[in-house]
Amino acid sequence: MAPSGQGNPLRADIARLLNPASVAMIGASEDQTKFGGRAFRNLMRHRYAGAIFPINPAREALFGLKAYPHVGATPAPPDMVVMAIPQPKVLDAIRASAAAGARGAVIITAKFAEAGPEGAAAEAELVSAARQAGMRLIGPNCLGVISPANKLVLCSSPALDVENLIEAPIGMVSQSGALMATLFDRAWDRGIGFSHCISVGNQADLELCDFVEYLIGDARTKVITSYVEGIKDPVRFLSLARAARAAGKPWLMVKAGRTETGTRAAFSHTASLAGSWRSFAAACRENGVQLMDEPDAMILLAAALARFPGRRVDRVAVITTSGGSGAITADRLTDRGIALASFAPATEQALAQEFMAGQAANPVDLGGRKTGEAVDIGGTSVKHVAADPAVDLLLLAITTAPMLDRTTAGLADAAIAAGKPYLFVMQPGKAAAAARRALLKRKALFTDTIDDAVRAAEAWVELSHPIERKPAVRPPGLGTSAAPATGATNEAETKALLAHYGIPVNQGDVAIDEPEAVAIARRIGYPVALKAVSAELVHKSDAGGVALELRDAPALTKAMSDMRAAIARARPAARLEGFLVQQMIAGEAELILGIERDPQFGPFVLVGAGGALTELLGDAALASAPLAPDDALVLLQRLKVWKLLQGMRGRRKLDVAAVVDAIVRLSWLAHDLRDDLAEFDINPLIVRADGNGCVAVDARARFEKRLESK
Amino acid sequence: MAPSGQGNPLRADIARLLNPASVAMIGASEDQTKFGGRAFRNLMRHRYAGAIFPINPAREALFGLKAYPHVGATPAPPDMVVMAIPQPKVLDAIRASAAAGARGAVIITAKFAEAGPEGAAAEAELVSAARQAGMRLIGPNCLGVISPANKLVLCSSPALDVENLIEAPIGMVSQSGALMATLFDRAWDRGIGFSHCISVGNQADLELCDFVEYLIGDARTKVITSYVEGIKDPVRFLSLARAARAAGKPWLMVKAGRTETGTRAAFSHTASLAGSWRSFAAACRENGVQLMDEPDAMILLAAALARFPGRRVDRVAVITTSGGSGAITADRLTDRGIALASFAPATEQALAQEFMAGQAANPVDLGGRKTGEAVDIGGTSVKHVAADPAVDLLLLAITTAPMLDRTTAGLADAAIAAGKPYLFVMQPGKAAAAARRALLKRKALFTDTIDDAVRAAEAWVELSHPIERKPAVRPPGLGTSAAPATGATNEAETKALLAHYGIPVNQGDVAIDEPEAVAIARRIGYPVALKAVSAELVHKSDAGGVALELRDAPALTKAMSDMRAAIARARPAARLEGFLVQQMIAGEAELILGIERDPQFGPFVLVGAGGALTELLGDAALASAPLAPDDALVLLQRLKVWKLLQGMRGRRKLDVAAVVDAIVRLSWLAHDLRDDLAEFDINPLIVRADGNGCVAVDARARFEKRLESK
Repeated sequence: MAPSGQGNPLRADIARLLNPASVAMIGASEDQTKFGGRAFRNLMRHRYAGAIFPINPAREALFGLKAYPHVGATPAPPDMVVMAIPQPKVLDAIRASAAAGARGAVIITAKFAEAGPEGAAAEAELVSAARQAGMRLIGPNCLGVISPANKLVLCSSPALDVENLIEAPIGMVSQSGALMATLFDRAWDRGIGFSHCISVGNQADLELCDFVEYLIGDARTKVITSYVEGIKDPVRFLSLARAARAAGKPWLMVKAGRTETGTRAAFSHTASLAGSWRSFAAACRENGVQLMDEPDAMILLAAALARFPGRRVDRVAVITTSGGSGAITADRLTDRGIALASFAPATEQALAQEFMAGQAANPVDLGGRKTGEAVDIGGTSVKHVAADPAVDLLLLAITTAPMLDRTTAGLADAAIAAGKPYLFVMQPGKAAAAARRALLKRKALFTDTIDDAVRAAEAWVELSHPIERKPAVRPPGLGTSAAPATGATNEAETKALLAHYGIPVNQGDVAIDEPEAVAIARRIGYPVALKAVSAELVHKSDAGGVALELRDAPALTKAMSDMRAAIARARPAARLEGFLVQQMIAGEAELILGIERDPQFGPFVLVGAGGALTELLGDAALASAPLAPDDALVLLQRLKVWKLLQGMRGRRKLDVAAVVDAIVRLSWLAHDLRDDLAEFDINPLIVRADGNGCVAVDARARFEKRLESK
Repeated sequence: MAPSGQGNPLRADIARLLNPASVAMIGASEDQTKFGGRAFRNLMRHRYAGAIFPINPAREALFGLKAYPHVGATPAPPDMVVMAIPQPKVLDAIRASAAAGARGAVIITAKFAEAGPEGAAAEAELVSAARQAGMRLIGPNCLGVISPANKLVLCSSPALDVENLIEAPIGMVSQSGALMATLFDRAWDRGIGFSHCISVGNQADLELCDFVEYLIGDARTKVITSYVEGIKDPVRFLSLARAARAAGKPWLMVKAGRTETGTRAAFSHTASLAGSWRSFAAACRENGVQLMDEPDAMILLAAALARFPGRRVDRVAVITTSGGSGAITADRLTDRGIALASFAPATEQALAQEFMAGQAANPVDLGGRKTGEAVDIGGTSVKHVAADPAVDLLLLAITTAPMLDRTTAGLADAAIAAGKPYLFVMQPGKAAAAARRALLKRKALFTDTIDDAVRAAEAWVELSHPIERKPAVRPPGLGTSAAPATGATNEAETKALLAHYGIPVNQGDVAIDEPEAVAIARRIGYPVALKAVSAELVHKSDAGGVALELRDAPALTKAMSDMRAAIARARPAARLEGFLVQQMIAGEAELILGIERDPQFGPFVLVGAGGALTELLGDAALASAPLAPDDALVLLQRLKVWKLLQGMRGRRKLDVAAVVDAIVRLSWLAHDLRDDLAEFDINPLIVRADGNGCVAVDARARFEKRLESK
């Protein structure tokens, strides 16, 4: 893959689709209640420079432009064909377009793969017909293309009913056409434009990643935005993510399916491919794709990043026309963990000229001025605040106020002159219409909600701290291991695997009867734990199969006979293979170390709060396997329980180095057995004080060949 | 207090201020760059039925209305006087108004108490002058009054620059004038009106609660909204909250200061009164005030509650014009813990007529239809979904779409006809202008953001599950106790207090030397814990003052001498009063039980995850003391660790009844010592298996007379 290379045929194909010499529109009409009518009008009105061939056998001319009876009748081969025609007619239209020499087609028509197996078969036929002719397809079931950079609109949406296209270095690729048009529309209202927007629909031929690859190499695109429901080719996706990062082009993404209900909504047909959100999120984080949960906020951030490329954001200053709004904005920033800057003494002194005692602080409430009107001091306030080196981003929270347009204009002029990242939050509705016009005239960045400003700020902070993974090196002396047979392994087998990878496990052995158990306990020392060994008992403790803190032989033998009875009661069918007699390990904290195999993105290591806290806290972080010690440490630092490991509140510092080593080793186990290992949990890993290591005291695994394994 | 009673003088005063027979406006002009110019114009344009007396010595007439040189020159005593004049002139104007027979005044002018001690003194003079004359004041430093119910506008904001006032049964009281006007403006854009909106400013005379009391008794108000920075009279506030609930009028509130930075922003002068957010939130929750974090969402919910009074909401159905938007909305609802309804088979069958296989589910994507356009099936889809008894609220998430106005109108007509709560989320900008007009024409409820719809739904669910506190009854045999002297108590003293209240503590005694310690240990049984006793060691473990799991006499004596040495090193000045030798208590879970004294709202009991988890999780719930067993149980059920108490994952069920009893007893301790007890923590309270009770193994307290104590 050479995304920005010369002579890349995919790149050339897409470049031509987005900037064709001519466009034929099948089904073009003047009827604005029809797709073909709206799409034709949208294409005509935005000053597309190429030739337009409306195809309509019933008409001589449409909006004064000569019409053609069929796609073969155009005076020159149409570079690109757009069709919004009934589903059964699409295949013929593709064939006719190919015969006429078309290089590409946009298929708006729906009821293909998304409608079931029959539709999928019809869709496959389209692709096959197109490929035979060397034609590329966008869609079907898409909303087409809006390319302000090329003044090309192949899209029927009423969102295009605007007097001009705004060109800006922001690309958009979307798996939802309606969402693309909606975002385009709201962005336009805020003066935000795009280079190219592509609705990819069912991605029968060209898919989302094809367009991302194009945008990475496109000189007119600096930021890439995307709405994604599923990734078709995970290896390529990750490779593109790294290419975008290398090119210095932030890639922002809203992906449906963060939650189970959202996943059901997004993937009514393809739920099996959804994978886990957290492993996807980890893959994005590691490779520089910035996930967001609100598309409008994504566009806002894209506009800010395009305006202020490469700028880091950590701390925010709020300037507001209302103390109430300042307080609410401060609360909301704090909710999302965004720091408000503390002003330097020089800034406070400069502000104190204009503001009452105690008011020269962040947030700056223009209502706290000594005299005059907000309009008189807005500009200088922005100047002073923007000059403070502690301030990375200005949030200008605007409520209704007298002379709001002049006040807003003054703030905007000062913010633009200061050259520091800023965002306006326009909280009134129509009362701020003139103020919004003042911002639009200045091409100033604004949103209408605190929510989106806060989201943009939060994501900007995250983007300012990219994860740069270190190369993972296999620990010295660590060999690979073959996988056990398919199925669940018992604890002894699982621990043998851990021991093979150099992860400390508590001593112990399997006993068949009481005398053997007592002999083992004498060897390893009391107190001991006793655990039933049976592949059929996945959650041993549920069936009475675990006894802890057994202090002597009588306690041990009694526990063993009690356990036999309990299991016979709870799980009469479970076959008891023996009893594991183990050292009791005392420690200061419990972690879970696990392996999660994503069907698309491969093995990830999971680290989190262990024991009872695992389910309670959901405090877990993931990284793709294998990983370097530095990255294992970063993973631990992302946990809430990191505080505990560091020795919170006079407690002892725990053995972080030992945990890091265990994570690294487990990541190699995950890597080596990636095609066989379905699940793997060490829970708990007992962590002891610094220097005393950590010990895996319980572990379970399930092996299952990966369907997609190479 | 008799909020809805007849002959309540406060009520009569406010009724007259909001509906005066005449208004004099000091500083009235035609100049729209001045407060007096805008306020005068706003008053004239909205068809106020009373007499208007512009006061302007330089003019004969203003906008064709006769002007008067001073407030004493009006043809009749002005009921209400509005003034937006320089600060130094306000006192004279109040005196002149009183002399002219005015009953009330709105003082827009700022630079009073909010500007420092001098301003506060000037403000006190205003109040004193007004009270002598029996005049009531709104402000100073306020934005006045907007009363659509009385067609009265005493407000200079450009938000009033609209063709009509919309009357609706929603009251608003705000400590921020700019925010009030901003909310009024955005609400108007959505067709949402109000009964009365009052900006209370510095609350020199009439304060927020006065107006809330009025609104509770006002027949034209059904829902009360408020923006609050601080509560002046907490007892009255809580009493009004209960009165509003009794009257069936939801009281919604956005309060600044949820976070420390927000508090600093809201209370630059009055931080000492802020109290803790969590005790305030607990007080609101118990008394029925619904807190929200976004004012726009508050207004949206108020409009919905006014439209659908008394309707409960638990489960939501999403109907959308775009699958992408449906997926995102589902994710966002799930994020906030809002359940999507599962449709009944009858609903699915009915939808299956129109929708493709697998698409007749929640969220309903109109794009998943079999044939035709969204406009054809929108109405019937809404009808079927609304008829499902599992659905309490319909969210209609609208993106750009062809014939969007007709599609939206069809959905709205069906939603209105169904009579079930609904909210439209209009995601496009100007492309939905005609659709928004269609909604406005139908007075349909809508917002422009998923965020606010989700917030409104979340708060509606909370309102549907009000906390009804049971009467707290002192446990039999429990006497009250006197407070120890001011200061911190040592562990032995604190535990004696707990024991007095019947809360189980672990056995133990204070030893001076090793032989005494060994004797105590022999009596209570090994293993034991050893803790240094010293009022100067608040965090004993930080100084090496805690040793656990001592199994025999040699271990105990060694620990004791080690401890002496450690404390001498860490805190040479700390006076050692002895060593506490205690039973080691084994158990299944650790809780914290605490008392938090709010400077305004009195004592609260706090229950949360204990031990190391206290700081890690922030998993805590509060309730005002004293409390009944049922309410103690509810408190426990709100915790994340509730799962643990119930016996998660095959673990044993823990002794919840014992914990409930301990909470109740602690709540009486909090109540009895409310004027003396500054802080009290039991941490950990060890909870054992069901039937085995719970034991406080560590506790600390600090006593300090309440400044405001009665």
